[in-house]
Amino acid sequence: MATTTNQIFIAVIGAGGVGKCFLSQLATLAARRPTPKLSLCYISSSKKAVFNADYSIGIENALQELASSSKQPLSLPQLADHLAAAPSKAIVVDNTSSQDVADAYPLFLSRGISIVTPNKKAFSGSYKLWQDIFTAAATAGSKVYHESSVGAGLPVISTLKDLVDTGDEVTKIEGVFSGTMSFLFNSFAPVEGSGGQWSAEVKKAKELGYTEPDPRDDLNGLDVARKLTILARLAGLPVESPTSFPVQSLIPKELETVSSGDEFLEKLPGFDSQMEETKAAAEKQGKVVRFVGSIDVASRSVKVGLEMFDKSHPIAALKGSDNIISFYTKRYGSNPLIIQGAGAGGDVTAMGVTSDLIKVLSQIA
Amino acid sequence: MATTTNQIFIAVIGAGGVGKCFLSQLATLAARRPTPKLSLCYISSSKKAVFNADYSIGIENALQELASSSKQPLSLPQLADHLAAAPSKAIVVDNTSSQDVADAYPLFLSRGISIVTPNKKAFSGSYKLWQDIFTAAATAGSKVYHESSVGAGLPVISTLKDLVDTGDEVTKIEGVFSGTMSFLFNSFAPVEGSGGQWSAEVKKAKELGYTEPDPRDDLNGLDVARKLTILARLAGLPVESPTSFPVQSLIPKELETVSSGDEFLEKLPGFDSQMEETKAAAEKQGKVVRFVGSIDVASRSVKVGLEMFDKSHPIAALKGSDNIISFYTKRYGSNPLIIQGAGAGGDVTAMGVTSDLIKVLSQIA
Repeated sequence: MATTTNQIFIAVIGAGGVGKCFLSQLATLAARRPTPKLSLCYISSSKKAVFNADYSIGIENALQELASSSKQPLSLPQLADHLAAAPSKAIVVDNTSSQDVADAYPLFLSRGISIVTPNKKAFSGSYKLWQDIFTAAATAGSKVYHESSVGAGLPVISTLKDLVDTGDEVTKIEGVFSGTMSFLFNSFAPVEGSGGQWSAEVKKAKELGYTEPDPRDDLNGLDVARKLTILARLAGLPVESPTSFPVQSLIPKELETVSSGDEFLEKLPGFDSQMEETKAAAEKQGKVVRFVGSIDVASRSVKVGLEMFDKSHPIAALKGSDNIISFYTKRYGSNPLIIQGAGAGGDVTAMGVTSDLIKVLSQIA
Repeated sequence: MATTTNQIFIAVIGAGGVGKCFLSQLATLAARRPTPKLSLCYISSSKKAVFNADYSIGIENALQELASSSKQPLSLPQLADHLAAAPSKAIVVDNTSSQDVADAYPLFLSRGISIVTPNKKAFSGSYKLWQDIFTAAATAGSKVYHESSVGAGLPVISTLKDLVDTGDEVTKIEGVFSGTMSFLFNSFAPVEGSGGQWSAEVKKAKELGYTEPDPRDDLNGLDVARKLTILARLAGLPVESPTSFPVQSLIPKELETVSSGDEFLEKLPGFDSQMEETKAAAEKQGKVVRFVGSIDVASRSVKVGLEMFDKSHPIAALKGSDNIISFYTKRYGSNPLIIQGAGAGGDVTAMGVTSDLIKVLSQIA
């Protein structure tokens, strides 16, 4: 029988957009749940940190304290020591996209510290890191959850795990996994109307804050490739890395090496004809072009790139910057299990992190 | 710190379509998970049961043993005694749609026995039963999960719980919650083409096994009303019962009291004009008619019945007998979080039960 742990210590790494939203959700959660007591014991940005000998930081004022702190962040091994010495169980909430933090997951997990995170790097890096993470967790009995690493708060990872764990056979996963790509193609090649020029849509997406500071970081397809790597591994394919399968980049070769995102945007109109041709080719068949990822489990093939879809296809009919993920399985037959909605944004990403935290609490507390 | 429980006892009530699929999934699960050991200790149909002094039934042969058993099922209080006396924790898997079994949930839960079930009756009956169930679970620390009570294996209940538990504000839930109704309207009023006669579609649905033995049990809307009751309560509305809000029945008044489903089907063609008028009225506006349920949380209004949708609306574009459920929330804004796929069938219903079982195991073992 489980004995009750009355207090759980939470260490938050990263206080950017997602981190701030998470802290707000954590404050609500802590206020609602008297047991176990959720104690924030560490918070850090890239340059500063707050922590103290009694493992207690007021959640409401944490960001202010962080801004005025004179302490540097602990190194990751130091943080593991600090948390392992806490009077009760600890959970690391990694709200960064840092490879260094991801590389430290096996260390945390092996010391009994659980992890919840939206950070894709840990699960889409080398296959060895993936194995080390889950081996460490299984051995130490610590938990690791990462719902928001694909589709933000949408129940993508949990659904795939449920399908696999209950013995269904996932045959294919297909979808639009990037809010940026979704927005770009829904505007560039809409189901109704003719859409805008490619370069103009990229510029607009950047102005609206839908792209990375350098839009090439979206257009290279790597973000989608990382998400596909995670899902493929959960479906049982030992994908080596996000560069071990075909990923189509939408960056014209000539612009790969220009020095800045601004210069890229300036020169992009000169390459609009390529994308226009692709759009016209689809249009001729009564279809639209979309940037999708797909995993064919039987043939062990994973790929990311442009594909054409009938205008009545759910992928074609997507709106705004929504993601859509279709799971084709033996049980679900020809009509897939589909999950759709916002796949980016601080609040919905933090929601996935918070719901993971609740799941971990239900198991360790 | 949680101590490990090495064995968990499973009692299965109901060995019909869902029960058989569940047993098959349980066999796979038990073979895959050495710890905790999953021991089937009781299985019953409405007339027979298998159980023994050492709480051990071979999962693979359970249905054969049940067929040849000469034992009657234990009464529900007797079963609670039997399980409470087991050498380790027990879980009841209720694969029936029985109100009697549902009424016994507070008894099981208060004695530390957890419950997983697709049975809608417990959660859509009186509000008092709902309260008794969750109070008993909270007091005794037992768990109760019922994912498959809405949308079968689709992650509907878990998603709504995650939204609420992480502090999102659910403003509206809308969807097609019945595989039967989905099939009927996708055939009767398709987005493309003119569709069939209403009575002919009902007859076809029955022949294909998509309806209850008496199709009126689908057409009265009560099944959808029960699902809406469950979701509304989870969203925070204390709905008294599935008959405490407007539910449109598609049974013509004159046929409510005919003696059999067959007589109903025979006489239904005489009432086709009503449904044809509804279809034509929608068509005039370029829309299609669908049978939907909706919950408006702010205005505390729940309703079930016919509504018209633009042909490009995801509800209109549904296929086969799929369900679709849209969650409108503060965080997700104007584009809802959508879940879609098969919402009925033995295998996918059992999948929801099995994934619930895995969640309970992760918490009590």
